[in-house]
Amino acid sequence: MATQADRTRRPFVLEEAVAILSRTPATLDAVLRGLPDDWIRAHEGDTTWSSFDVVAHLINTDRTNWMPRARIILDYGEARPFDELNRSAHFVESRGRTLVSLLDEFASVRQNSLRDVATLRLTESDLERRGGHPALGVVTLRQLLATWVAHDLDHLMQISRVLARQYSDEVGPWRAYLRIIREAHG
Amino acid sequence: MATQADRTRRPFVLEEAVAILSRTPATLDAVLRGLPDDWIRAHEGDTTWSSFDVVAHLINTDRTNWMPRARIILDYGEARPFDELNRSAHFVESRGRTLVSLLDEFASVRQNSLRDVATLRLTESDLERRGGHPALGVVTLRQLLATWVAHDLDHLMQISRVLARQYSDEVGPWRAYLRIIREAHG
Repeated sequence: MATQADRTRRPFVLEEAVAILSRTPATLDAVLRGLPDDWIRAHEGDTTWSSFDVVAHLINTDRTNWMPRARIILDYGEARPFDELNRSAHFVESRGRTLVSLLDEFASVRQNSLRDVATLRLTESDLERRGGHPALGVVTLRQLLATWVAHDLDHLMQISRVLARQYSDEVGPWRAYLRIIREAHG
Repeated sequence: MATQADRTRRPFVLEEAVAILSRTPATLDAVLRGLPDDWIRAHEGDTTWSSFDVVAHLINTDRTNWMPRARIILDYGEARPFDELNRSAHFVESRGRTLVSLLDEFASVRQNSLRDVATLRLTESDLERRGGHPALGVVTLRQLLATWVAHDLDHLMQISRVLARQYSDEVGPWRAYLRIIREAHG
């Protein structure tokens, strides 16, 4: 639990989580909208994702993961484990799309997700309700919603890293000072 | 060097670098403006930086690092090594400030920096001009400008990570899936 002096942990507060989640579409817009397509489609090699892929994935997870799983917890608890996610569905869903249309769709999908959150009028005791994750076992609604926030930020970090690493060679000796480039893709 | 098929490296193109650099103020605004102060001031422990510190640092580096060093390269070449940077100057500069005033200042400082870039009308041969880094030795203007871009993205990554890690405990078992939380601070 966070104490007043601890600046490395925040307790989950629904309004704060919503404040962060509501910012993500505008953040992705600011970073990506209008960038040359070669940058949008750049990735970290092999089967790693591009910024385009990440936006498509965030649309997919708002549709299939966060609020759908929240509803399963509220309606069934542990009696009905979550459905498995398809972590490559967004490749099919985004085929032939433009980044602009994905960014617009994400803004709309996220707005709907957060409207659904508000409609539920979740109480502290709702947040402690438990569900069954197919691999991780028992989880709470509070953990699910905190993970939604961290997942957004994880993918914002990924986009920053994917873009920066395009200049891994161009930065020359400064590579040694740039953690974003220096650290191996794990 | 990037080839047409290589999506993991982009060659340095000034217009593209400027396109990314010009986005950073709006990106930081989207992520941070209006967030509760406890989030803005959150950090990763010990002497690590908060999001507030990062914005102050970006103002400082636009003022003292990127374009000042570019001018030293263009005016003196290797004959005059860069001045050392003061990596903690921003702590003093930002004392008593609000995040909103720092975000406004960063937008203005960055706009001025990019106006200065445009005024120089840099050619490909300018980009190959060399300067002397006090620790790294010979560097080119091209490397300096590429590093400016990667440095912005490195700090955007840092802000994402600082915020996400506040929920390191709250995500519960999902911690195992979240690279942003799982990986130790290095």
